[in-house]
Amino acid sequence: MKRGKVWIVGAGPGDPELITVKGLRLIREADVIVYDRLVHPALLREARSDAELIYVGKAPGRHTMTQDEINKLLVEKALEGKMVVRLKGGDPYVFGRGEEECAYVIEHGVECEVVPGVSSAVAVPAYAGIPVTSRWCASSFAVVTGMEAAEKEKPRVDYARIAAAVDTIVVLMGVSRLEEITRSMLRGRAGDTPAAVIERGTLPEQRVVVGTLADIASKAREAGIQPPAVLVVGEVVRLRDRLWKLR
Amino acid sequence: MKRGKVWIVGAGPGDPELITVKGLRLIREADVIVYDRLVHPALLREARSDAELIYVGKAPGRHTMTQDEINKLLVEKALEGKMVVRLKGGDPYVFGRGEEECAYVIEHGVECEVVPGVSSAVAVPAYAGIPVTSRWCASSFAVVTGMEAAEKEKPRVDYARIAAAVDTIVVLMGVSRLEEITRSMLRGRAGDTPAAVIERGTLPEQRVVVGTLADIASKAREAGIQPPAVLVVGEVVRLRDRLWKLR
Repeated sequence: MKRGKVWIVGAGPGDPELITVKGLRLIREADVIVYDRLVHPALLREARSDAELIYVGKAPGRHTMTQDEINKLLVEKALEGKMVVRLKGGDPYVFGRGEEECAYVIEHGVECEVVPGVSSAVAVPAYAGIPVTSRWCASSFAVVTGMEAAEKEKPRVDYARIAAAVDTIVVLMGVSRLEEITRSMLRGRAGDTPAAVIERGTLPEQRVVVGTLADIASKAREAGIQPPAVLVVGEVVRLRDRLWKLR
Repeated sequence: MKRGKVWIVGAGPGDPELITVKGLRLIREADVIVYDRLVHPALLREARSDAELIYVGKAPGRHTMTQDEINKLLVEKALEGKMVVRLKGGDPYVFGRGEEECAYVIEHGVECEVVPGVSSAVAVPAYAGIPVTSRWCASSFAVVTGMEAAEKEKPRVDYARIAAAVDTIVVLMGVSRLEEITRSMLRGRAGDTPAAVIERGTLPEQRVVVGTLADIASKAREAGIQPPAVLVVGEVVRLRDRLWKLR
């Protein structure tokens, strides 16, 4: 029997029109779509009517399937000869575990291809009027996970050092640890550095809270910001006033 | 007369299928398309037959139009009531001067919207089998310009400090200064750190040179790597062996 193939596809940051043309084409062609929680329902409506749609989403603290089960599912469906699209929010290689799934699939003798997506790290600030780089004030940016501590015994991320090294810092999946993360950054960056938290970025219900590194965590708490949300720290947050008028 | 609008649209990293669905829709609708050198010709063929296509590309050392002339052109066309798409390689807010053009357009009373694109910083490594993050070895990445020195009196980027702070470093537009940039990074990172240079990433003619931080500049020179090319430094480069089989 013909062996199938797995495509690991980025669905983009939220707005369903921000998926790539390639990603949408693969969704329309797929036999099986294995999708995450943050994938927009409009994208699933593009699937063939006879396609098998499998939800494997992870709500905070509540997993539908373990990562190991997801890996096995992808291989199993491909070995049945199916064209499998593994659809993930954002970009599969930016904290999406895409590399883990791709390595597993290849190790089990199945062809695998990654289709990059628009990353929330850049697009969510952009939809909020904040460029991550700027000729005026930002020649570098770092993208950091805010979820690390939960997964690793010894934390690898040194937020203070990163905040001192680059102009703009973007933290993904950090909203539940905002106090802790910003406190760490204050050891490497001035308290009056502009900062913003963006909830459900690029979607109609997007909310933006603006403050400074010193007060953004408490401002976000007062506003009741919930995941998914993106933290941006750096002078670029000030550009929002110039880039946001008339929108 | 009806006032037009400017959309600043990311065309993605090279592969024309990596433009967003929104970007492609706007190209098809536009009255005027103002485009850069790294935009794929296939995207321009999607324009209306009566659309006005204006090339404003910057080849290294040779500008068709100054940035100021481009800014004025966007406003002028919009004030004629036109729907203007400003099409840029990669993402407009990742070293694309999108923020500069957007601010200028808004300051001149014209509505402006940014449409994020797939950034070369993430997608070019991905197409070469290199994820910028990984649960195994990378919880953070930095994206840095390699062009800065040419533009600013006092350099702002401290490559050594960035290389010491994050797990993965991606340098865009740095191929002509590779010796200098990697030498700086060696003050913050071990010489045996894996590194790769990717020329014309995501396109059929893509070339990849793999080495270490200590020897990647000379290897790239020997291979005759030309811009546009992306430098990636970090343990993630090792994952290429696991993620590239069967491709």
